[in-house]
Amino acid sequence: MASIDLNSDLGESFGPWPMGDDVSMLSIVTSANIACGFHAGDPAGILSVLKAAAERGVAVGAHVGYRDLVGFGRRDMDPSSAELVADTIYQIGALQGLATAAGTRVRYVKPHGALYNTIANDARQAADVIAGIRAVDPALVLMALSGAPIVAQARAAGLTVVCEAFADRAYNADGSLVSRRLPGAVIHDPQAVADRMLRLVTEGRITAIDGSEIALEAQSICIHGDTPAAVAIARTLREALSAEGVALQPFVHG
Amino acid sequence: MASIDLNSDLGESFGPWPMGDDVSMLSIVTSANIACGFHAGDPAGILSVLKAAAERGVAVGAHVGYRDLVGFGRRDMDPSSAELVADTIYQIGALQGLATAAGTRVRYVKPHGALYNTIANDARQAADVIAGIRAVDPALVLMALSGAPIVAQARAAGLTVVCEAFADRAYNADGSLVSRRLPGAVIHDPQAVADRMLRLVTEGRITAIDGSEIALEAQSICIHGDTPAAVAIARTLREALSAEGVALQPFVHG
Amino acid sequence: MASIDLNSDLGESFGPWPMGDDVSMLSIVTSANIACGFHAGDPAGILSVLKAAAERGVAVGAHVGYRDLVGFGRRDMDPSSAELVADTIYQIGALQGLATAAGTRVRYVKPHGALYNTIANDARQAADVIAGIRAVDPALVLMALSGAPIVAQARAAGLTVVCEAFADRAYNADGSLVSRRLPGAVIHDPQAVADRMLRLVTEGRITAIDGSEIALEAQSICIHGDTPAAVAIARTLREALSAEGVALQPFVHG
Amino acid sequence: MASIDLNSDLGESFGPWPMGDDVSMLSIVTSANIACGFHAGDPAGILSVLKAAAERGVAVGAHVGYRDLVGFGRRDMDPSSAELVADTIYQIGALQGLATAAGTRVRYVKPHGALYNTIANDARQAADVIAGIRAVDPALVLMALSGAPIVAQARAAGLTVVCEAFADRAYNADGSLVSRRLPGAVIHDPQAVADRMLRLVTEGRITAIDGSEIALEAQSICIHGDTPAAVAIARTLREALSAEGVALQPFVHG
Repeated sequence: MASIDLNSDLGESFGPWPMGDDVSMLSIVTSANIACGFHAGDPAGILSVLKAAAERGVAVGAHVGYRDLVGFGRRDMDPSSAELVADTIYQIGALQGLATAAGTRVRYVKPHGALYNTIANDARQAADVIAGIRAVDPALVLMALSGAPIVAQARAAGLTVVCEAFADRAYNADGSLVSRRLPGAVIHDPQAVADRMLRLVTEGRITAIDGSEIALEAQSICIHGDTPAAVAIARTLREALSAEGVALQPFVHG
Repeated sequence: MASIDLNSDLGESFGPWPMGDDVSMLSIVTSANIACGFHAGDPAGILSVLKAAAERGVAVGAHVGYRDLVGFGRRDMDPSSAELVADTIYQIGALQGLATAAGTRVRYVKPHGALYNTIANDARQAADVIAGIRAVDPALVLMALSGAPIVAQARAAGLTVVCEAFADRAYNADGSLVSRRLPGAVIHDPQAVADRMLRLVTEGRITAIDGSEIALEAQSICIHGDTPAAVAIARTLREALSAEGVALQPFVHG
Repeated sequence: MASIDLNSDLGESFGPWPMGDDVSMLSIVTSANIACGFHAGDPAGILSVLKAAAERGVAVGAHVGYRDLVGFGRRDMDPSSAELVADTIYQIGALQGLATAAGTRVRYVKPHGALYNTIANDARQAADVIAGIRAVDPALVLMALSGAPIVAQARAAGLTVVCEAFADRAYNADGSLVSRRLPGAVIHDPQAVADRMLRLVTEGRITAIDGSEIALEAQSICIHGDTPAAVAIARTLREALSAEGVALQPFVHG
Repeated sequence: MASIDLNSDLGESFGPWPMGDDVSMLSIVTSANIACGFHAGDPAGILSVLKAAAERGVAVGAHVGYRDLVGFGRRDMDPSSAELVADTIYQIGALQGLATAAGTRVRYVKPHGALYNTIANDARQAADVIAGIRAVDPALVLMALSGAPIVAQARAAGLTVVCEAFADRAYNADGSLVSRRLPGAVIHDPQAVADRMLRLVTEGRITAIDGSEIALEAQSICIHGDTPAAVAIARTLREALSAEGVALQPFVHG
């Protein structure tokens, strides 16, 4: 039986400012990427969502980011290697502490925003993040963009890598994401999203924006929960996968 | 043979701003209270000092503080319990991650500055810090002000507590510290500091500011390294204790 | 003809996190207390709301707060006088710069949250805020809690003070606010709020929680916009006052 | 008689962390670039150095930077135009407020660190900083790198620009600075520094690293004060210029 993991970004509130619908998303996803305080998330809020994830059996990962709160970690930055290695370790460690307090533990690391996009292709920053993960716990899994150079780089460095696809994003024929600046980059129709992901899970293939059929490795599907519409798409996707007999479960077990 | 631990605050640089002489102090102390990023310390600098501590066999503790960088954690604050519990966990976890990367591990927790002073007597905030420590690892030791109410409170909650004396501070007859605002609160003569601490270690007694002799529980002595004069006092103290046959070693072993 | 000012807190978004419905509130209030970046507000967001306020002829004030973003300035803090004076000046100056860029100018200062509550009664911190305001521009008006000691203190120091009443709060017989921890502290019925404020504006009196009638000085009424219900109450109040012929206008002119 | 301005970065302490020797430098420079809180500087410390500058008749400028405290504004960042424009205004305004309180006023703007280097050549970010300056006060002078594209860009936009040379840096034949990564980039000999700057001031020419003679526009010379050696070089330079009859004075008057 086919199975897949569904992941989403959670714990991104900060102090008095809420973000997203974490409670709803925890009933949909099987893995939660939890903010670690650098791009979003304050300790009390993070602890609260970790407890909720633990109660529901949702796996948790460290959603590490650049130290740029006002920019939400979405702005390119150029930290030194010493900084990026240590920032990665610090964030993972902080989340591990909170996860222990919540009765769960950190299973994987998924970089966030500009850091995610940069390390997909920038070997220096990728190496720093990989070194940071390995320094804390080499058994931590890295979640990365399917098809990006970092996948092979991290595997060569000894990390287990889980590749993810984006449920609502169009792909180019070479397997890269269509830039958000281009028309058609984001797919808004819930049924189209569900159909594409069902085919990806069962056949390992997806239709690129130019109509060609491409293979894509994906052990996890990233979904969004930042708007009511996004939550609805996520729920539709989950139901469609379940209806077709796809098992929804974290990529990590035990 | 008598033995004692010497502790000091380290890792309090931040970004481009150095603080203290960590290298010198690591050759003097047996336990290092390492800043965790809330009142001081950035991840790269913390990692660097953790590695240096690990190389020298100096035990490390989490120097958790209020989230007040510009105030260096020295200003009274009133966090909620949910905030203070989670802030404590977050800081300990972050340091644990960095300590793992440095080949050592966090052995104890010593709150910093205004948080240290507040929890000495404020049972609510004390309970929050205790809960935070226990939630991460109940085997972590709490380092606290000798004679303060938190000592009994933490022990009742199941924590091991190490009491500390302050090498260069005068004591009131009730065992409390003489306020820094009063004359004679700080002892500047290196020999006087050494004589007082030697007697404390060997006899468990110290002369209070009114001339009375008082008993003081102390498994560790806090020394400062923020000025060249402070480093000189610390070195004199270490040499005086060694010369009298006092073993200088971390309070935690193994 | 009676007239009154309606004020509300705006510009409290931060980076990716929105807060409140600034656009709706700008069609209701006559004065906007704009966050200055210490408890909330980022420069780009502040500039945007200042431009919107300028377009609508809404007066703007500096909503200065403690430097505590994650705590939203709602936690008691104990800055030194040198810190609090300079923090006040810095925030006012920053808002003046942005206001100039938006084609308007800062007319008054209203401290926020824990700072507002503290200086109502704490003469030392009150003196610091007053000194900060005077150092930037002695013509800036201070908006303060009606009946609090700071009102006389600031007037004695040479500041013009505008007293404000809280539309949805119950009052004690001595003119102080009923603590939020007590039942009945907040009035949720829009019509009751409107009736109370109409009477305050036209007669200068309000019914205290014990049923007694008390006099209250108020040149401005504080309303909230942080929830749809709050916006609805605010709109009802504005319409009720207008219907009775009360002129709604900023307390500052020219 | 020839005259020149000497400028240096001041006010870069933060909270408990000192930086540089502001007092010494204020007896050497004629213009002080004052940190505005984003890359360095806290309000109380900034106010203190502004007062000292005002007492000595040293002109003050806003040393605006990226919002990156731990990185000291030295890391490349990619803020949006809306962010960079507003961040520039916010910092200038904050410093204006503090300058008013100190009895002086902000005369110019000199971007710091990575922002300085980026806008020298990046027309988009340069335009944002220029727009921010003009939005606060079009009479503010921009201090920029001699020979860089931003000089013409800012003049075309209506700003007065002062070009600066770096006292201890080697120049390429095209007038650009020799990269710090290359040998010979920094000149450490105080007499060599003084000789080069004296010739620049009197003849408008400097010897490039390849031995060629180049023309360089400079109304100000940037000197450093972050180490005792740097202060000594700065003092030697000032004395050498004075001894040759060069008037040392701010580029702005009145």
